[in-house]
Amino acid sequence: MADGDIVLGPNQYGKAENRLVRITRDTDRHEIEDLNVTSQLRGDFVACHTDGDNSQVVATDTQKNTVYAFAKEHGVHSPEQFLLTLGDHFVTGFEWVTGGRWEAELYSWERIAVDGQPHDHAFVRSGRETRTTVVQRDGDDTWVVSGFKDATVLKSTGSEFHGFPRDRYTTLVETTDRILATSVTVWWRYAAAQNDDWNASYDAIRTVLLETFASVHSLALQQTIFAMGKAVLEQFPEVAEVKLSCPNKHHFLVDLAPFGLDNPNEVFFAADRPYGLIQATVQREGTPDAPEAWATVPGFC
Amino acid sequence: MADGDIVLGPNQYGKAENRLVRITRDTDRHEIEDLNVTSQLRGDFVACHTDGDNSQVVATDTQKNTVYAFAKEHGVHSPEQFLLTLGDHFVTGFEWVTGGRWEAELYSWERIAVDGQPHDHAFVRSGRETRTTVVQRDGDDTWVVSGFKDATVLKSTGSEFHGFPRDRYTTLVETTDRILATSVTVWWRYAAAQNDDWNASYDAIRTVLLETFASVHSLALQQTIFAMGKAVLEQFPEVAEVKLSCPNKHHFLVDLAPFGLDNPNEVFFAADRPYGLIQATVQREGTPDAPEAWATVPGFC
Amino acid sequence: MADGDIVLGPNQYGKAENRLVRITRDTDRHEIEDLNVTSQLRGDFVACHTDGDNSQVVATDTQKNTVYAFAKEHGVHSPEQFLLTLGDHFVTGFEWVTGGRWEAELYSWERIAVDGQPHDHAFVRSGRETRTTVVQRDGDDTWVVSGFKDATVLKSTGSEFHGFPRDRYTTLVETTDRILATSVTVWWRYAAAQNDDWNASYDAIRTVLLETFASVHSLALQQTIFAMGKAVLEQFPEVAEVKLSCPNKHHFLVDLAPFGLDNPNEVFFAADRPYGLIQATVQREGTPDAPEAWATVPGFC
Amino acid sequence: MADGDIVLGPNQYGKAENRLVRITRDTDRHEIEDLNVTSQLRGDFVACHTDGDNSQVVATDTQKNTVYAFAKEHGVHSPEQFLLTLGDHFVTGFEWVTGGRWEAELYSWERIAVDGQPHDHAFVRSGRETRTTVVQRDGDDTWVVSGFKDATVLKSTGSEFHGFPRDRYTTLVETTDRILATSVTVWWRYAAAQNDDWNASYDAIRTVLLETFASVHSLALQQTIFAMGKAVLEQFPEVAEVKLSCPNKHHFLVDLAPFGLDNPNEVFFAADRPYGLIQATVQREGTPDAPEAWATVPGFC
Repeated sequence: MADGDIVLGPNQYGKAENRLVRITRDTDRHEIEDLNVTSQLRGDFVACHTDGDNSQVVATDTQKNTVYAFAKEHGVHSPEQFLLTLGDHFVTGFEWVTGGRWEAELYSWERIAVDGQPHDHAFVRSGRETRTTVVQRDGDDTWVVSGFKDATVLKSTGSEFHGFPRDRYTTLVETTDRILATSVTVWWRYAAAQNDDWNASYDAIRTVLLETFASVHSLALQQTIFAMGKAVLEQFPEVAEVKLSCPNKHHFLVDLAPFGLDNPNEVFFAADRPYGLIQATVQREGTPDAPEAWATVPGFC
Repeated sequence: MADGDIVLGPNQYGKAENRLVRITRDTDRHEIEDLNVTSQLRGDFVACHTDGDNSQVVATDTQKNTVYAFAKEHGVHSPEQFLLTLGDHFVTGFEWVTGGRWEAELYSWERIAVDGQPHDHAFVRSGRETRTTVVQRDGDDTWVVSGFKDATVLKSTGSEFHGFPRDRYTTLVETTDRILATSVTVWWRYAAAQNDDWNASYDAIRTVLLETFASVHSLALQQTIFAMGKAVLEQFPEVAEVKLSCPNKHHFLVDLAPFGLDNPNEVFFAADRPYGLIQATVQREGTPDAPEAWATVPGFC
Repeated sequence: MADGDIVLGPNQYGKAENRLVRITRDTDRHEIEDLNVTSQLRGDFVACHTDGDNSQVVATDTQKNTVYAFAKEHGVHSPEQFLLTLGDHFVTGFEWVTGGRWEAELYSWERIAVDGQPHDHAFVRSGRETRTTVVQRDGDDTWVVSGFKDATVLKSTGSEFHGFPRDRYTTLVETTDRILATSVTVWWRYAAAQNDDWNASYDAIRTVLLETFASVHSLALQQTIFAMGKAVLEQFPEVAEVKLSCPNKHHFLVDLAPFGLDNPNEVFFAADRPYGLIQATVQREGTPDAPEAWATVPGFC
Repeated sequence: MADGDIVLGPNQYGKAENRLVRITRDTDRHEIEDLNVTSQLRGDFVACHTDGDNSQVVATDTQKNTVYAFAKEHGVHSPEQFLLTLGDHFVTGFEWVTGGRWEAELYSWERIAVDGQPHDHAFVRSGRETRTTVVQRDGDDTWVVSGFKDATVLKSTGSEFHGFPRDRYTTLVETTDRILATSVTVWWRYAAAQNDDWNASYDAIRTVLLETFASVHSLALQQTIFAMGKAVLEQFPEVAEVKLSCPNKHHFLVDLAPFGLDNPNEVFFAADRPYGLIQATVQREGTPDAPEAWATVPGFC
């Protein structure tokens, strides 16, 4: 290639959003795993792009089939383990496939209680946050980034915001008591691609994140989310790094004075847009960066 | 007016989707009520439509202000009670307002547990179903229709479908064991516009609906939803009528035979569209219909 | 049945949101029709609801198959004609099916221009409004209600709002120049279930609705939408009745005075929620009502 | 800081999704600009995260105010120019603000035709693709990445897919004639942060992308999108690099054989999920990478 020639740069392709429900029914007490799985391959796919030569293109349909077949052959167990198994298959199975990206969402279900007893095979989707995982491979290097999204949390007091600089365009009034609400999107990078119990790690990290949100007296949403990430790093040596993206979901105190009413932080208008958007990374000093792990995690700094 | 003249027919107007968060903070243990409130008025608004004469148009902005002011003056307590109070205000306050429609969605929150103890003022949105209410007035007549939507439930066994007629266009295979999944939208009409505890009624009816879904061995989704409505009518004399709208969220068993694998109801593809859509009314014989109560309840038979 | 017995009331069932793309390729210049079709049957389905007896349940899968087969056998031509043909098939083909409801959305495509010439078989979705139709049958009675949704229109001047009553909760300032913006949802009931050219009627009615929105100097959104419906009735004798549902999509003038700037109707904040919601019916005096035609048209007064 | 200390890593914050409508009304023929603007700052914000010290936190509310004030003071003209002006203000105005990210979506409107003449101040949203721009600053370095999303295009013939490898999990049948449909998301990086007419560049690039989609006989979606990017680089020296992300929106030929019907590529089922997802970068050989330009462009390889 000569300088200025038009060439293919980074690329990946696959099958997105394979909706997989796996029922384990070895006993009458069924278990349910409900996922949305995306598989994308990287490697030598130049000929397809430049000449339409598909001889190295593992069809996206084949990737889909593999997802469903592996759910039977290997089980799911955890989104992390399932994606690692998929990634290993593609990277070792096709010599021109040198890496890829596998992503999953996991939706949680609860058993319906009948006469106070959890039912054996009837479930209601819990509606709590969506658990997420992105596994990436580049040759023998593997990155596992897990997290969740759409965890909407709110503190009805214990949040202040003041002391910010004022310029020509500043009109915001300072406050020592406001509602703090956000929908937490968080990703944490595991230091290694193995874990005795990915699900236990997830549950424990989630608990620490929510507890920290609740407990920190907040002077800024930045302070809150830094504390959340810091708490995870302090308690979980298996986590190398945490990224949080948190909209500040504004709850505006309604001015009831025109109606002869006071409003001591009781009646709020919950606004849609615009919203504050606070994004931060919490790291361990001296730990090497891992830009490959984060390159395709959506919407982050 | 002469025959053929073009005239105004049924109409209503107001402010939709007022997002209201009401914090009760009489003690350190705060309570949260989170609603989406719509107010619409009916009455004599001909001059506005034909001549742009707004002298009888209670501004939609005024309706919005009233929602927020009433949250302070009267509290919310339950969506039913809140809407009844709003309706009474508008119908009695403006002589040309003869009726209207008030609708609310209620979102539920749980306290975040910190060290196992529910926090005083930190909450996480539960993500379970959205509670809904439509109150309508026409003069002195009042209708209250309550329900919920987006309750996604699934049975991993205990569901069959066979015995249906076969014509030229029928290819469906009969089954004696399938996944049954739906997202329940349900509305029930209360026989009267008063109730000692609207919230207790809601919780109890919800429990019966979910328990019935879980317990009924299903030969058709129609059978399941009829049983759900019937159970409510049997146990709650305050309910006059129930309507259910339930998509049959198909979970297709994946054919793994090409890969040399069997699939004894373990691995499913959860499809988006198309979906079955089953809608039914369950009534008490001899109870008069109430078409006014249902006219503007969205999307129903 | 004795009074008080719990019985099945109005019900319907079928397959919703069958996504159908029909290509006509008799010549090199292809035509595309892109629809979302829902089929629902009514009739005697009591045994299925009460006993799980499916012997009269035309499977929703069969309804889906029929949609696709009919697209080949009969073509689409217009959503109205396609749904009428479907309805006729089900009502005449199964003696216990006495009626039903068939709904379609139609998405419009434009040819991609290449060197200024519309391409033979390459299209771009136009993104303009979604055309809608609901056909209902009850025995030999047929109703056709057509319309569109998601037509977002805006006037940057030529809109006033003043003269409204003021009560304790009124704070809105009067205005003689505001932005008027809405997303038009409109349905018109055809007087008969036949039409030489349903597509031509649609295009002509759409044009009149948009032209009227543009031309009317507005003193209230109510006045604008009544004028829109009236214009349709005046020009199209085949239309019996028009219903419009129009959110008032508020564009608030931003107060730039704190920054030393005036704002003569130039800079606006486009709000999401809440919004005004204006809904009206425009009729011909003396024309009988047709409540069956409107019973399941979503979200209307 | 000692190794292992927990520290703040990359971060940014601001106000997201400021919905701005700018009317130019110097004459009776109004112009409309409709944008969704996000502003995020980067710099020294450590004290806020670690101690809740807001003395350097330019409030997100102030960023919002600046967006609206600048729309009056400077006008919009193009999303690129507007964001560059915003970025310059924040980076030069606060010494601890060293960079940031500004993003906009632009929605297009057409004049409503009345009696064949485009109206002076009445508009209908066109619904075509959403134009997008991300401007980033790091000190004196500036990157401009523009593009669009949600351009849904389809070819009803002129697309093949065959010759792909077959393994144990491959069941896909080869085809020499299929529908090719996608919703194009594309970003191109401008080589410099200045342009005599950003809008003209946008329109011309958009035209080339659509024309190329239409004209290329496709052996794989990869081939099509590479050709689209290549055509842009060949014709627009101001563009340094192009990234495309294109879902393969599957249109499955419906098997009508059970109904005694053939289906020569006429009747298709348009599927939702899963979908192929093809993503590629097209570059000029020898041009340095610009990872900073792409770091926060959502969802890309």
